[in-house]
Amino acid sequence: MHTIDDLIQLALQEDIGPGDITTDNLVAPHTQGKGVIVAKQDLVVAGLQVAEKVFTALAPRIDFEALCADGDQLLAGSTVVEIEAGLGALLKGERTALNFLQRLSGIATQARAFVGEVAGTSVRLVDTRKTTPGWRVLEKYAVRIGGAHNHRMGLYDGVLIKDNHIAVSGGIANAVKTVRQQISHLVKVEVEAATFEEVKAAMAADADVIMLDNMDLEQIRRAVRMIDKKALVEVSGNVTRQRLKTLAQTGVDLISIGALTHSAVAVDMSMRIEMI
Amino acid sequence: MHTIDDLIQLALQEDIGPGDITTDNLVAPHTQGKGVIVAKQDLVVAGLQVAEKVFTALAPRIDFEALCADGDQLLAGSTVVEIEAGLGALLKGERTALNFLQRLSGIATQARAFVGEVAGTSVRLVDTRKTTPGWRVLEKYAVRIGGAHNHRMGLYDGVLIKDNHIAVSGGIANAVKTVRQQISHLVKVEVEAATFEEVKAAMAADADVIMLDNMDLEQIRRAVRMIDKKALVEVSGNVTRQRLKTLAQTGVDLISIGALTHSAVAVDMSMRIEMI
Amino acid sequence: MHTIDDLIQLALQEDIGPGDITTDNLVAPHTQGKGVIVAKQDLVVAGLQVAEKVFTALAPRIDFEALCADGDQLLAGSTVVEIEAGLGALLKGERTALNFLQRLSGIATQARAFVGEVAGTSVRLVDTRKTTPGWRVLEKYAVRIGGAHNHRMGLYDGVLIKDNHIAVSGGIANAVKTVRQQISHLVKVEVEAATFEEVKAAMAADADVIMLDNMDLEQIRRAVRMIDKKALVEVSGNVTRQRLKTLAQTGVDLISIGALTHSAVAVDMSMRIEMI
Amino acid sequence: MHTIDDLIQLALQEDIGPGDITTDNLVAPHTQGKGVIVAKQDLVVAGLQVAEKVFTALAPRIDFEALCADGDQLLAGSTVVEIEAGLGALLKGERTALNFLQRLSGIATQARAFVGEVAGTSVRLVDTRKTTPGWRVLEKYAVRIGGAHNHRMGLYDGVLIKDNHIAVSGGIANAVKTVRQQISHLVKVEVEAATFEEVKAAMAADADVIMLDNMDLEQIRRAVRMIDKKALVEVSGNVTRQRLKTLAQTGVDLISIGALTHSAVAVDMSMRIEMI
Amino acid sequence: MHTIDDLIQLALQEDIGPGDITTDNLVAPHTQGKGVIVAKQDLVVAGLQVAEKVFTALAPRIDFEALCADGDQLLAGSTVVEIEAGLGALLKGERTALNFLQRLSGIATQARAFVGEVAGTSVRLVDTRKTTPGWRVLEKYAVRIGGAHNHRMGLYDGVLIKDNHIAVSGGIANAVKTVRQQISHLVKVEVEAATFEEVKAAMAADADVIMLDNMDLEQIRRAVRMIDKKALVEVSGNVTRQRLKTLAQTGVDLISIGALTHSAVAVDMSMRIEMI
Amino acid sequence: MHTIDDLIQLALQEDIGPGDITTDNLVAPHTQGKGVIVAKQDLVVAGLQVAEKVFTALAPRIDFEALCADGDQLLAGSTVVEIEAGLGALLKGERTALNFLQRLSGIATQARAFVGEVAGTSVRLVDTRKTTPGWRVLEKYAVRIGGAHNHRMGLYDGVLIKDNHIAVSGGIANAVKTVRQQISHLVKVEVEAATFEEVKAAMAADADVIMLDNMDLEQIRRAVRMIDKKALVEVSGNVTRQRLKTLAQTGVDLISIGALTHSAVAVDMSMRIEMI
Repeated sequence: MHTIDDLIQLALQEDIGPGDITTDNLVAPHTQGKGVIVAKQDLVVAGLQVAEKVFTALAPRIDFEALCADGDQLLAGSTVVEIEAGLGALLKGERTALNFLQRLSGIATQARAFVGEVAGTSVRLVDTRKTTPGWRVLEKYAVRIGGAHNHRMGLYDGVLIKDNHIAVSGGIANAVKTVRQQISHLVKVEVEAATFEEVKAAMAADADVIMLDNMDLEQIRRAVRMIDKKALVEVSGNVTRQRLKTLAQTGVDLISIGALTHSAVAVDMSMRIEMI
Repeated sequence: MHTIDDLIQLALQEDIGPGDITTDNLVAPHTQGKGVIVAKQDLVVAGLQVAEKVFTALAPRIDFEALCADGDQLLAGSTVVEIEAGLGALLKGERTALNFLQRLSGIATQARAFVGEVAGTSVRLVDTRKTTPGWRVLEKYAVRIGGAHNHRMGLYDGVLIKDNHIAVSGGIANAVKTVRQQISHLVKVEVEAATFEEVKAAMAADADVIMLDNMDLEQIRRAVRMIDKKALVEVSGNVTRQRLKTLAQTGVDLISIGALTHSAVAVDMSMRIEMI
Repeated sequence: MHTIDDLIQLALQEDIGPGDITTDNLVAPHTQGKGVIVAKQDLVVAGLQVAEKVFTALAPRIDFEALCADGDQLLAGSTVVEIEAGLGALLKGERTALNFLQRLSGIATQARAFVGEVAGTSVRLVDTRKTTPGWRVLEKYAVRIGGAHNHRMGLYDGVLIKDNHIAVSGGIANAVKTVRQQISHLVKVEVEAATFEEVKAAMAADADVIMLDNMDLEQIRRAVRMIDKKALVEVSGNVTRQRLKTLAQTGVDLISIGALTHSAVAVDMSMRIEMI
Repeated sequence: MHTIDDLIQLALQEDIGPGDITTDNLVAPHTQGKGVIVAKQDLVVAGLQVAEKVFTALAPRIDFEALCADGDQLLAGSTVVEIEAGLGALLKGERTALNFLQRLSGIATQARAFVGEVAGTSVRLVDTRKTTPGWRVLEKYAVRIGGAHNHRMGLYDGVLIKDNHIAVSGGIANAVKTVRQQISHLVKVEVEAATFEEVKAAMAADADVIMLDNMDLEQIRRAVRMIDKKALVEVSGNVTRQRLKTLAQTGVDLISIGALTHSAVAVDMSMRIEMI
Repeated sequence: MHTIDDLIQLALQEDIGPGDITTDNLVAPHTQGKGVIVAKQDLVVAGLQVAEKVFTALAPRIDFEALCADGDQLLAGSTVVEIEAGLGALLKGERTALNFLQRLSGIATQARAFVGEVAGTSVRLVDTRKTTPGWRVLEKYAVRIGGAHNHRMGLYDGVLIKDNHIAVSGGIANAVKTVRQQISHLVKVEVEAATFEEVKAAMAADADVIMLDNMDLEQIRRAVRMIDKKALVEVSGNVTRQRLKTLAQTGVDLISIGALTHSAVAVDMSMRIEMI
Repeated sequence: MHTIDDLIQLALQEDIGPGDITTDNLVAPHTQGKGVIVAKQDLVVAGLQVAEKVFTALAPRIDFEALCADGDQLLAGSTVVEIEAGLGALLKGERTALNFLQRLSGIATQARAFVGEVAGTSVRLVDTRKTTPGWRVLEKYAVRIGGAHNHRMGLYDGVLIKDNHIAVSGGIANAVKTVRQQISHLVKVEVEAATFEEVKAAMAADADVIMLDNMDLEQIRRAVRMIDKKALVEVSGNVTRQRLKTLAQTGVDLISIGALTHSAVAVDMSMRIEMI
């Protein structure tokens, strides 16, 4: 929350800097305007509150009326939001508000499509830490809005023991035991396993979650049988939209997908401004 | 520059927060490590200094050795950089550094491809303000590294008079005159024109640059002839990679492309970490 | 980590403000000094790195030599640390460094004593969110140094469903199900239960942890039997040092104690400064 | 004032971070609630405005109705304040608001008791710089609310010449003269004296205040006679509640007590939340 | 804009710090007052919005009624603004608000006088980067209010190629070409020329603006003839009010004057405060 | 101290913003340079450390060699400082460093001249709060360097009871008593007096300092006799350099002069840069 306000300030500062030399010199301070944001393609909307914050940062008393809610599926041509505010604030905030809204809606739209691929299964599609720096909380929010799920928010709210951690700890058993001793009882421990031996070690250490790293389908199926519901099973690594259904059918609990954030692109929206 | 350091702080803060509960509890403070960043696809690299700043923010005295320079075209498999630092700092900074490097290199790589489409012409491909909020300076840098050019940095360093500005100013002539009176003599004035009449008015007002808004090819060619080098000519609006060559051949000076930033995706890189 | 640096800046700013008008006017800039911090009572030391950061913020190149490590049990009279630095930096940083060190060591010292009460049992003594505002990460660190454990760091890294949450969600079952759907699979869910009926509902909802709220010893024992290792059991509410042993013997897994932080007081330390 | 807002931001940030994952997922945005803060022991209340700021930072338009004023002596069971606000804001702000209120009221309560020990004398009990880092202004405020007085706020608004300052200045006379030449005429000069010779030197230098450092009762009485109202007299060092009355009767003007802040503990308060 | 708010915070912080110990201890919180700011000399007013922001930062709901607008020429004795607010806020904000208003109006007043010297010519008087650090945007605003013009805002929104730049680039031609390749097409290039040869080189390089550095009148006239409207001509260096008219008559387009900002002094204003 | 670093960041940010588009595009990163700052008029130098901090903020490892010390009287033509650093850092920092140095030296130079007017008397010339917002600590430092003295630093480190304070407190006696009860014993109380009656009341209230507000010479002399060394006497209001000597001879202790800061102008300095 705090970081979102900081990011909005950064965004307005980098765009407006010492002043919008076109608008400040041409638009009289009290001229009022109306802006209408429209979807130019089918999309799942996300980020309405961020867009509102952008305009509020420029003009505390605006009238921002959303015609839909985050998570709504809109058809091309739909009106997203109507804003009444000073014309100057509309012209200065337009680009920044759209930049937020288009990227977040882009992520939600793609997530919705990915989730559709595994409809009917109980698998969770989860994001990763491959988010745009500065945007972690926002992008993870958009992922949820699209119907996918979040992996840990960062390095602080979940344990993921990887190969380097194992190496310096003298094995999986020791690593899990050491870290559990120091962390809150509300935080689970996940262990990365590249071989069946490591899967067994993770189970012996009573890991809460086991991540199968770059295994092929056959290996995954065998690991799922080995683990046998004693821990949650996550698959990770080069997951594409095409492979989702097949992976889901292996019986894993979680599929983590970097592309949910790192390969999402902005959806098309525009804002029409009129004087009133 | 200031904003880049702020963004890096935001990024590390959102990822690490109150602490990396895996690494802090398993890796002894003085364990040293080596990280090697490798390109997993052909790409144009951009953002090496940002990656270095990420690690320096975590461990002031690191050894960061780049094996290439921003702008270099790398083949898949190439080593990008080798870093010697505390193992803890490597594990904590890895994801954030890659998140920066992959996105910036993604922009540079795409820009290089776009520029290739108009090789042999004198047209400039320029970016827009459709950048990721918080990333303006970085993304515009990556665009230049890719060989394309920058439009104005923000609302403060170039005048772009659009339809709403014209409406409130009583016409193009008045708008240009009013704004010129207030701005520095080092800043040029660009006017958006959707009709030939507006093109004429912009020429009469002695605009430095005229932006042809959503004209078709025939209209663009006619506008270029009308303007006849008296002003720079920019085309804008729904420019795709496919149309670049044809647009360039109309004789316009500048083609602005939102996709240079808003539709770029991360290129694939990874970091291998070893203890030393 | 970020917040610790912020807090140190706040602390130095509130103490020095526009300048130390005694020292700045009497001590020549290049006069060197040596400071020796001494324990004036038996204590468990915590916060050495924070003390070092205080002096480093005032004089980047100091020589800070700790003669013990966080967690060490010191006898009254022991030397804690020796610092060589500009005399001015020593005089300006002394009070702030001691204020940090004395409070954090006070928490660690008290935690060590509390933990001693339950030696030989497997119960975890855990802290709460009753920490000094601005000091959350530091105080939770001192608790660990003293040998006790941390509950969740804040509202973001663990779920604790209380009476109000249950009321608005239509019961425990619904609350647990709703929240699990939105959170990371690495975060556990704890439910507060004041009656045996609520304990049963929490078990039915598959809560990871059940907090027994203000139950008497007999009720706690019965609840422990009911839960029968299907979930972790935490007791909470008005826990005093005197009751720790008895509570531990009921078989609960966790005892949470606000006093670990909100009732800790500073231990006695002083700093002797000499010119060199 | 500025630092208080910073500290509140730090406090909310460290507790809520990227989001309250229990409340955000269970409480609908527009659910309203009422919170009632109650004293669980006899106490002197301090910090009502800080508590209000905490909730206002989370929900700008709340109804915060204090049923008492800072400095009021409350009996156990008294209602301190009633707050109507969004249920979410109440649940998120509860702990932080109480953490502020309980510590500040704890300081005021203890100060009131200390002041009671010297009732009927004209001595001032004054605090020290042994405050919780980040809390200087708040804790000194609570000391005043409790009826004790403030020593200097920091190193910038009062001169206190200690042994090291004297040593580098070639004696008390020189130190006082040098510093007076540089400081505002509105700031007084206090000199620390451990011997009668130093007391004499401080008087000869026309010090405004003389601090008797670690003298016994007999020495203090003699020093008071020597100084004979020519300067204010402060005693300092290991002052306990038990010694206050005796010290006051020596005729000193000021007794400084680190324990007023460094050994105060939180008083007991709780907040009951209901839906409305 | 962002920097103005930061500067106001800095200003209030440096003046009020931990509290106005006179007003906070004597004025009851709800006492209302009225402040009237009066011009004590003839002046051009500038900075009304900044003054309003100062009071708003202290008391969000004030009534600030300006009786004139920035740019108005006021006679001594005129009322500038009337403010109704808490008496405490008026007393705390008075000095800071006046400090801003008096300096900015001082700059506007002086600029108006300078511009008067070249009335009837088409020359532009432009400011420089010799502004008070932290005040760039404000002082450049006051210059415009006074009727003079702005040179570039900083190093980022205009190119000015000086002797050192030329030396490292292998001559003017190369320098201009290199920089143009990297910058936005909306930014002009100015070249400093100390000799006629350099003037010719700048023209050959198609510089947009040529700055004549420390040339005498005769040289300036000759350079103007050489350049013959192919580029804008600026003169710079030790320009005094006395020389303005003569310089303007040489036919140059721009005269840059450091004294517009670095030698402006505060005009006299005062604020009368009454209780209401 | 903290605010000085903030102000330097503001200053560099406002000048460089997203980049120095001339230097960044023309000067290779590793080109070294040497800068020599020279006095272009007789002056008293002040601000050398601030100038050094400017360059250090741009290039941590520079060689900054001052050839004089703050407070030195320099003749026109003297070298002030020599700096070896990256050529880019020199070109970017030059203007900001000079802007600081010229203004601070301007204040010191003027203060030295003012102090010369009262040579041989024991009066203190003191500054006021009429400083450039954001520059309080720096400008008060320059005043001291010039040999004048500081009044209180802000509203927090000295009490000055003015007419409005007296009005709301029911008279001078009450105001002084009330405020003394709340403030530290190290802070003095000054009372503004416009009539002899007020002077008497201030004396009766045992004010430490009495400020004679806008009295004529005869009245001042009489007030000095009345006060008879029982309190310090300050005169204030429209003090010009011409009146200083006469005022000093009335026997007052302090003359406060807003012009020391609000009417100081920059002295002339320049920086010559060479490649090395």
